[in-house]
Amino acid sequence: MSRPVEAWVPIDDRGLAYGDGLFETVLVRDGTPLLWSRHKARMSRGAEILGLPVPSDAELDRLPGMAGAGLKVLKLILTRGSGGPGYAAPYPAKPRLLWQLSHFAPQPVRWERGIKVRLCRLRLGIQPALAGLKHLNRLENVLARSEWNDPDVAEGLLCDSQGDLVEATSMNLFWWRQERWETPRLDRCGVAGTLRDALMERLRIEEVSMGTEVLAEAECVWLGNSVQGLWPVVRLDDAEGNLQYRWQLKREHRALQDIAHELLGYPVVPKS
Amino acid sequence: MSRPVEAWVPIDDRGLAYGDGLFETVLVRDGTPLLWSRHKARMSRGAEILGLPVPSDAELDRLPGMAGAGLKVLKLILTRGSGGPGYAAPYPAKPRLLWQLSHFAPQPVRWERGIKVRLCRLRLGIQPALAGLKHLNRLENVLARSEWNDPDVAEGLLCDSQGDLVEATSMNLFWWRQERWETPRLDRCGVAGTLRDALMERLRIEEVSMGTEVLAEAECVWLGNSVQGLWPVVRLDDAEGNLQYRWQLKREHRALQDIAHELLGYPVVPKS
Repeated sequence: MSRPVEAWVPIDDRGLAYGDGLFETVLVRDGTPLLWSRHKARMSRGAEILGLPVPSDAELDRLPGMAGAGLKVLKLILTRGSGGPGYAAPYPAKPRLLWQLSHFAPQPVRWERGIKVRLCRLRLGIQPALAGLKHLNRLENVLARSEWNDPDVAEGLLCDSQGDLVEATSMNLFWWRQERWETPRLDRCGVAGTLRDALMERLRIEEVSMGTEVLAEAECVWLGNSVQGLWPVVRLDDAEGNLQYRWQLKREHRALQDIAHELLGYPVVPKS
Repeated sequence: MSRPVEAWVPIDDRGLAYGDGLFETVLVRDGTPLLWSRHKARMSRGAEILGLPVPSDAELDRLPGMAGAGLKVLKLILTRGSGGPGYAAPYPAKPRLLWQLSHFAPQPVRWERGIKVRLCRLRLGIQPALAGLKHLNRLENVLARSEWNDPDVAEGLLCDSQGDLVEATSMNLFWWRQERWETPRLDRCGVAGTLRDALMERLRIEEVSMGTEVLAEAECVWLGNSVQGLWPVVRLDDAEGNLQYRWQLKREHRALQDIAHELLGYPVVPKS
C-alpha cells in the first residue's frame, strides 16, 4: 500500500488539509515497541472507521527496530494522501505513512510524588462517530492545553459538553472509589489509550459517566498513557487556580501503577 | 512573520499533527480575489482564537495576482508551524503559510436548474470554541461527504447533535419562509462562509435554530459558498434516499442568487 515512508506532505495531503488521518505515539525500548499490537489495532480500527487502507504489518513492524538502543518515541502518522478539492475522498486513496523517532526521557519524580492538575474550561464536543480514535483533529486538545502555562501544572482535566469527565489533554483518567477502579466512558469523545485498554484487560475497571463531583469520593486519582506511564494526581485546581481536591499517596494505591509500569518496562516505584 | 511560503510541511508541523491551523478557499478572477477582505478577516479572527500570528496583508495580497488570467481558486493554509511533542504550543510560534492556485470551472447547470441534496446521518458535534472558524479539523465534513457516491446528489445537509440544521458539507444554507430569508445560527458548530457574511450585510437574513421540519415551510432553499456561488435546492432526500421535500424554482426566488453572483462576478442566471 501507500507510498514509501516519507517525512513531508504536500499542501494537498488530506491529513494536512482536513486532519483526515490517524496517529500513534509508541514507546520503544532498545528497538522493541511497547504495547505494539494495541497501537496497531487502534490504528486499524480508526482506518476502518475513516475508510482508509491500513499499512501492512510488515511495513509497520520494521520501524521500531530502527530506533537503536535506548528509550525512544516512535510517532506514526497515517493520512489519506493527496486529494483534489473538496471533502470527497480520492478513490482509490493512496495513503501516506509518516514516522519519526525521538529520544524520550520519562519523569520519575512524577511517578513517585505525583502531579498537580487543573480543570480545563474547554468542554469536549460530543461526536460518537470519532470517539476513542486517535485521529488528527486535535484542536480541542490544543485549545485546552493552551489554558495554562504554569509548569507546576502537569495536565488538564477535560469534561464533555454535558459535564461528564472524559480524560486529560493527553492522558486517560482513573480513580479508586468504593473499593473499585473507575475510568470515564469514551463512547462520545476522547481517545481510548492503549495503556488504558491493557489495564482494563488486567484489572476490573468500570467505565462510568460522571461529572467532576465523583472525584470528591475518590481515594486516589491517576493519569496515564503508553509513553509516560502512570502519574498519581495529588492536587486538582479549578480553571481559576483554586484548590478543589487533594489526595494522599498511599502504598496500597500503587497497584495500578505497578501493572502499568510492568506493561511498559518501567521500574516499580518505591512505596512511600 | 513566518517562513517563506512553501508547499510542503514536515511531520512535526502542527497543522498536520493536530489540524492546528486554518484555511481559506478564494475565488480569483483574472488575478483579482473575490470577497478578499472577508477571507482575510475570517483568517484573522480564527488566528486570534487559536493564538496564531497572522500573515501580513502584504504577504497575503501578493498571492492572488500570481493567478494570471482566467478563473482560479487560491487555497491558503496557515499552520502553527513545527512543534515539539505534545499539545503545548511552541513559543514563539513560527507559522507556515502555504498556498496553491488551481483552475476552476463553475457549474452553470446547477445555478440554473438547481440541485438534489440529501440529509446526512452524521451529526455535527457542538463546540462553541471553534464554531464558525475555517480550521483544519474537518473530519466531520469528510465523514459526512463519504455517506453518498451518487453524482446526482450535489450536497449533504448537516444537523448538529441536538438536531438543529447547520449547513451543507461545504456550503451554507438559506431558505425563504414567511416572507423572509433565514439561515442557521453558527455559534455552536459549522463554518461561517464569507459569501454568507456578505449576503447578510446586503439583505436582512435571520439566523435561526431549527430542525429539518422548518424546510417544510420554506418556499425555496439555497446552498452557497464563495467559490461555487448559489445553487437552488429542488429536492431533499433523507439518508436512505427517500424523497423528503421538493421545491419549485420561481423567478422571484432568485433575488439571493442575483446578489451573490454580483458579489462573485458570476452572471445573473436567466429567470425561468
